[in-house]
Amino acid sequence: MKPFLVKLSISGRHLHISREDLDALFGPNYQLTKFQDISQHGQWTAHEKVTLLGPKGQLDNVRILGPVRPQTQVEVSRTDATKLGVNPPVRESGDLSGTVGLTLLSPAGKKVELREGVMIAARHIHFSPEQAREHSLTDGDQLSVQINGQRGGVLHHVIVRVRSDYDEDLHVDTDEANALGIKNDSQGIVIGKSSL
Amino acid sequence: MKPFLVKLSISGRHLHISREDLDALFGPNYQLTKFQDISQHGQWTAHEKVTLLGPKGQLDNVRILGPVRPQTQVEVSRTDATKLGVNPPVRESGDLSGTVGLTLLSPAGKKVELREGVMIAARHIHFSPEQAREHSLTDGDQLSVQINGQRGGVLHHVIVRVRSDYDEDLHVDTDEANALGIKNDSQGIVIGKSSL
Repeated sequence: MKPFLVKLSISGRHLHISREDLDALFGPNYQLTKFQDISQHGQWTAHEKVTLLGPKGQLDNVRILGPVRPQTQVEVSRTDATKLGVNPPVRESGDLSGTVGLTLLSPAGKKVELREGVMIAARHIHFSPEQAREHSLTDGDQLSVQINGQRGGVLHHVIVRVRSDYDEDLHVDTDEANALGIKNDSQGIVIGKSSL
Repeated sequence: MKPFLVKLSISGRHLHISREDLDALFGPNYQLTKFQDISQHGQWTAHEKVTLLGPKGQLDNVRILGPVRPQTQVEVSRTDATKLGVNPPVRESGDLSGTVGLTLLSPAGKKVELREGVMIAARHIHFSPEQAREHSLTDGDQLSVQINGQRGGVLHHVIVRVRSDYDEDLHVDTDEANALGIKNDSQGIVIGKSSL
């Protein structure tokens, strides 16, 4: 694999929501309203926000991403989790079995108690099938990515995710961005594959 | 340099305080009271805590470290700084020229307006002179340190600090710990020198 530059994007805390939980929080058949498109095709941030309530604290104004999904998935950083008082695992999107719960609170005061769905997103890099082929990569590969600068370093175990509606983009969370001096216009260098 | 294991410690937000600022916050000739010794000889956490007030938010119960120092130095993470609404540089301890300010608030409601002293501590590793000699290291060297695990990676630019009252210990802040899955009993592997 030849090293290549990759664009970095920072994912702040957010949630994907199920039809059932959206109805419970905002009313029957409620339709999310689009705020902004995001880097992956067909996904967007909604105007709608909720509060996350944990046993030790709360986080307000957490944005919902659309469209609705089969199961609600709340993505927080380890810093967020400590504030909330929950201990979620680091997971890939969609892998929610054995994750932890918390309470969602709508602006109108409606609550949903999640039994699971709260995770810390494993850092990952999106590719279209063509982009993956170009770099000889397969869905599920793990990459090592170098970040330059005063707080520079290398992130191992960046998971490759390939799908036809994806576009090349490496997603880190706010802890990873803050620790390594990554900004939303930063670039990384994929230096090789890594394995656990 | 031969690779070697090193103990990791996580520094949460804290401050070192000057005699003048301590007097202003807690009263003339106030003496800090020791809570716990920390890993570096002669330094300790105090029972006394203050609130940090920034233009966008505040952080309560921030612990003072003793003994008093010539100038007040507030060490926060990038996450903390974002919450406060300040933009401090990443610096070595004591290098405060050009750092940013904020307001300190005592439990009794006394305030001190700092014009500078707020920084994000550059990750660093303490050594006694004997320990530094053993690894052929000099004060000011920069090391690359590998962290294993699901969120593993490499931290470049870990600054070597050598002093007779120091003991081998690598200090990261909470963002770095959270991003790389570092806990207070974690170990890293010093894999070589790094330079900017």
